[in-house]
Amino acid sequence: MKSVAVILSGCGVFDGSEIHEAVLTLLALDRANARVVCAAPDLPQHHVTNHLTKKVAVGETRNVLIESARIARGNLKSLRDLKPDEYQAVILPGGFGAANNLSNFAEKGGKCQVQPEVAQVLQAAHKAGKPLGFICISPGIAANLFGAEKVELTIGNDPGTAKELEAFGARHVACTVHNLVVDRRLKIISTPAYMLGTRLTEVEAGINKLVQAVLEMA
Amino acid sequence: MKSVAVILSGCGVFDGSEIHEAVLTLLALDRANARVVCAAPDLPQHHVTNHLTKKVAVGETRNVLIESARIARGNLKSLRDLKPDEYQAVILPGGFGAANNLSNFAEKGGKCQVQPEVAQVLQAAHKAGKPLGFICISPGIAANLFGAEKVELTIGNDPGTAKELEAFGARHVACTVHNLVVDRRLKIISTPAYMLGTRLTEVEAGINKLVQAVLEMA
Repeated sequence: MKSVAVILSGCGVFDGSEIHEAVLTLLALDRANARVVCAAPDLPQHHVTNHLTKKVAVGETRNVLIESARIARGNLKSLRDLKPDEYQAVILPGGFGAANNLSNFAEKGGKCQVQPEVAQVLQAAHKAGKPLGFICISPGIAANLFGAEKVELTIGNDPGTAKELEAFGARHVACTVHNLVVDRRLKIISTPAYMLGTRLTEVEAGINKLVQAVLEMA
Repeated sequence: MKSVAVILSGCGVFDGSEIHEAVLTLLALDRANARVVCAAPDLPQHHVTNHLTKKVAVGETRNVLIESARIARGNLKSLRDLKPDEYQAVILPGGFGAANNLSNFAEKGGKCQVQPEVAQVLQAAHKAGKPLGFICISPGIAANLFGAEKVELTIGNDPGTAKELEAFGARHVACTVHNLVVDRRLKIISTPAYMLGTRLTEVEAGINKLVQAVLEMA
């Protein structure tokens, strides 16, 4: 049985993990009989968004790990407690949490930094030859960490965002929501999900392929 | 194209809608090409639970509609703005929100009350011959509203909870996580989901059958 770490970034598309993408990832992993370890960094969210008005809830604070626990039904751990022998692959769902809590890609684009615990886990896994899956906007993190190795990845087809990825040396490949980009050399897999998707079944198609590709390489 | 109202109760198993059940419901509806209208009552949550510690976050308050918007990606409306001609069926995912925000079944069991807007929507839909689907613990609401009509339903196999349902006149039928109970006479369908489920694919099996049954009767 293969084990996969799923790194969450909160709970909700506008300030945390995109919930549908996260659940579809967990569903595809369960279907493949993979063991899942959910983890998230134990730090304050960059901001809290009222998902009804889509406006920032000024003055409100929430914790990334505690909110991520909603998606994981309480079964998760702080990223700093995640041990390398617990997983053979890592997957990051999207949502603005990936671009605001796990990195500052939303603000800084091609000059972003990756949260240190996230960077450490992903770099160590990559060095150990473990495949990494990046969904939706989370390839911004992959571009930062693996741009110097000329990683090939996708965030769909938005030229502005693609340009930010390429600022790190990454090669952006346009991709539809039903498909994925596989960098076999670096074992890095990405799919656009809600960067392009307008319905759940579309997003599911890409995520299913991503999970399958990650597990095949693990 | 059939339209289905999905009534949410917050965002997270311990104080709102069970996220996996809600997303699996939306996924099954999308797969069937149904139109979905998500709705939730605009009221304060009964409580907020820290999903990491599983303890109540004393002093913290959140709003059911605003938190439900996380699952619906902002595409939902207040229950009081939901019009009868917008849907031909209604489904309620589970989670403690169904038993604490949409009703007080968690506290009062067989003596619970249903939140007035929720009761109004469900009773009107039932009167109009629209099928209703109840997932996980939400059949507590169905027992309250339709117990006098001797509704048949399930919350899995817990004798204590079943007894509370039967206090309203409902007939409880034991059921596995992969299955469902269909009351054809009253067009009320239920499935245990995480009342019994230990993994996503189990819960998906029951919810897929529930959604299919609801759509067939709509």
